[in-house]
Amino acid sequence: MTSETPESFATELRCIDCGMAAPLGYRLQCSFCGGLLELAYDETALARRGPGVLAGTGLWRYAPVLPIADPAHRVTLGEGRTPLLECPALARHLGVRRLRVKFEGPNPTGTVKDRSSTTAVAAALQFGFTATSVVSSGNAGSSIAAYSARAGLRSLIFAYEKASAPKLLHMAATATDLVIYQGVYDDLITLWDRLVEDRLFFDCGASRNAYKHEGKKTIAYEIAEQMGWRVPDVVVAPVAVGETFIAAHRGFSEMERLGWIARRPLMVAAQATRANAVASAWRENRPLQPLRIGYTVAEGLAAGNPGRKGEWVLRILRETSGVAGDAEDEEILRAQALLARAEGIWAGPTGVAALAVLQRLLAEKAVDPDASICVIVSETGLKTEAPPPSRQGIAFDEESLRRLVRERLGIGG
Amino acid sequence: MTSETPESFATELRCIDCGMAAPLGYRLQCSFCGGLLELAYDETALARRGPGVLAGTGLWRYAPVLPIADPAHRVTLGEGRTPLLECPALARHLGVRRLRVKFEGPNPTGTVKDRSSTTAVAAALQFGFTATSVVSSGNAGSSIAAYSARAGLRSLIFAYEKASAPKLLHMAATATDLVIYQGVYDDLITLWDRLVEDRLFFDCGASRNAYKHEGKKTIAYEIAEQMGWRVPDVVVAPVAVGETFIAAHRGFSEMERLGWIARRPLMVAAQATRANAVASAWRENRPLQPLRIGYTVAEGLAAGNPGRKGEWVLRILRETSGVAGDAEDEEILRAQALLARAEGIWAGPTGVAALAVLQRLLAEKAVDPDASICVIVSETGLKTEAPPPSRQGIAFDEESLRRLVRERLGIGG
Repeated sequence: MTSETPESFATELRCIDCGMAAPLGYRLQCSFCGGLLELAYDETALARRGPGVLAGTGLWRYAPVLPIADPAHRVTLGEGRTPLLECPALARHLGVRRLRVKFEGPNPTGTVKDRSSTTAVAAALQFGFTATSVVSSGNAGSSIAAYSARAGLRSLIFAYEKASAPKLLHMAATATDLVIYQGVYDDLITLWDRLVEDRLFFDCGASRNAYKHEGKKTIAYEIAEQMGWRVPDVVVAPVAVGETFIAAHRGFSEMERLGWIARRPLMVAAQATRANAVASAWRENRPLQPLRIGYTVAEGLAAGNPGRKGEWVLRILRETSGVAGDAEDEEILRAQALLARAEGIWAGPTGVAALAVLQRLLAEKAVDPDASICVIVSETGLKTEAPPPSRQGIAFDEESLRRLVRERLGIGG
Repeated sequence: MTSETPESFATELRCIDCGMAAPLGYRLQCSFCGGLLELAYDETALARRGPGVLAGTGLWRYAPVLPIADPAHRVTLGEGRTPLLECPALARHLGVRRLRVKFEGPNPTGTVKDRSSTTAVAAALQFGFTATSVVSSGNAGSSIAAYSARAGLRSLIFAYEKASAPKLLHMAATATDLVIYQGVYDDLITLWDRLVEDRLFFDCGASRNAYKHEGKKTIAYEIAEQMGWRVPDVVVAPVAVGETFIAAHRGFSEMERLGWIARRPLMVAAQATRANAVASAWRENRPLQPLRIGYTVAEGLAAGNPGRKGEWVLRILRETSGVAGDAEDEEILRAQALLARAEGIWAGPTGVAALAVLQRLLAEKAVDPDASICVIVSETGLKTEAPPPSRQGIAFDEESLRRLVRERLGIGG
């Protein structure tokens, strides 16, 4: 949808377990071993061309490292190009040398999900589907519905009944069909993942689809480009099933292999304590075990069974000496208030969980405060549902207003 | 806050009524006639340099045509660079040749207000203030509070009691002090405008401050730059007191004088019928008369007394053969649903009022459907408060889920 249309350098799909290659197409697992697939690119050509191969603005600027061949399929709502904000006041508060926030709130639907919804819906068009579907705690549903509408596709969204009011309104407005479900998120995902095989709709879930997953990789490319093809020492990314974390790691590793950046950052995986399957497996150095979980304020992180993606996160953590941590709901809500007051950034609980985890890991000396740190804040605060502030009114006249202003601003009479 | 720091070409303030010039400084009205002030620039130098004078990204890319001299004062949360979206499905629905939406939702606090909050808070720093204040129906308050926090300034926000829950939460999180007021918005603004003279805080209201106003001008520069220094035939802008409308017109006129664009677009002023002081004065070709107004779903347009800015809007409309219109709340809500379903853009009632007015003006043949039209959609839908969709749950097993999907997608069993 821009006048500049860089080509895609995608070449094939490759199994993350057995390494077997498969031709590009709509495949959700390795036909040999059943493992998850990831996309592969002509890295020789990309290394030779360098970052100059990128053209245009927004997410599709990174089309050369995305798997959508035909520019006509590259649906957009203007996602990406989100701010990478220096946060000196917050850095002082946390006692770290340098802190940046990659704030994903200014995406079209308010979250990092728009990066993967773009490539998911583009892939649905690429493979000739006319309907999409996803099971969602709120953000993915809003985002997939919005991009499906934009592309002229039907969308069938299964939304968690405890999703916040702004999320439910958003989904109801943009989805072709919204089904609100009761019960356990992980259970419905398991049933729904089986239904995907019927090919009634394009899989917009987070479990398996490499085309959806791939869009999230652009967050790594954007951070590097915004820093002049350097990267922070440490990147803290949220983990529900692990899409953002894995994709960011994939992006940084790819750029390192291509010689676009000198070295990858250390990756930190951030979870809510109430849904900490990956973090606890990492800490206890044992395999992943699914958890039966309840509600957490970080709604978007409420996955008790991260499945094979969770195992992939653990593998990355172990192979790269990464770090994992989690934070209690109370810590997450305190981090939300801190970020708003210290830097004016209003993010939702799902969005600030990574900041709360960073605070905890700094206290535990598991992250070096002299490192340059980037926290991925994945969600706007505008989707937050909480008791409103007191609506106690005051009847004003000029004198009472003047007194009130002096008092509030701490100015003597 | 970027490595590139273009200089400001601002030279003086100038009265819009008597034309008298005043040196740059914190002045809210002409010392000769009491008229509103606007900023003036070294247009000879800007014309000679051309758009190549712009550097960096985001709103401060336009620093040469903004009145903040010291780059250290240019506070940012990553505002600007919002999407200009081609909307072919919506264009077909409306029967117009070409329709673009300038979607301001992806600003840091979700609205076009961030453009003026940036320059307001930057000017507060420039003139040595330590506190800001504004009276707001919700969006301006959130935005001024966020930018004040980012700049390390105190903020005192007066918020309308009927502001939506997401707006109230946002203000409570970011403001130093939030005062929720009962009563009529226009009355409080009148009292508060008098209090501004005490200089206890920097004026972040929409009535008079040219430095605040000026940031909104960047929306015109961005539209032109995104279209390769061409502009649409028609631009539809919302009008409460008129800040966005006047600033957009100022930006386009400035670019025309500088020779950066060949000609200005025709400007359309859009109001809510429940607060249509400007539109009705324009239609009836009479002076502006303040209205006593009640609630409108377009909360951000609920100004019954647009004052001297409203008169400025009328003057622009009359001098440039512009058009004004208004839309009923029901039409605004229908436009909100239409934009979400046709293009996947989720905007609030304040944001889509301009689209609803365009629909009405097309029906009245007051706008040419063969023109290329750009609608400024000023607000994200995530701040909307409305009854949530029914939370009726369905207990799933694999078979019932398969039946439901087939039924919803209209696929035979």
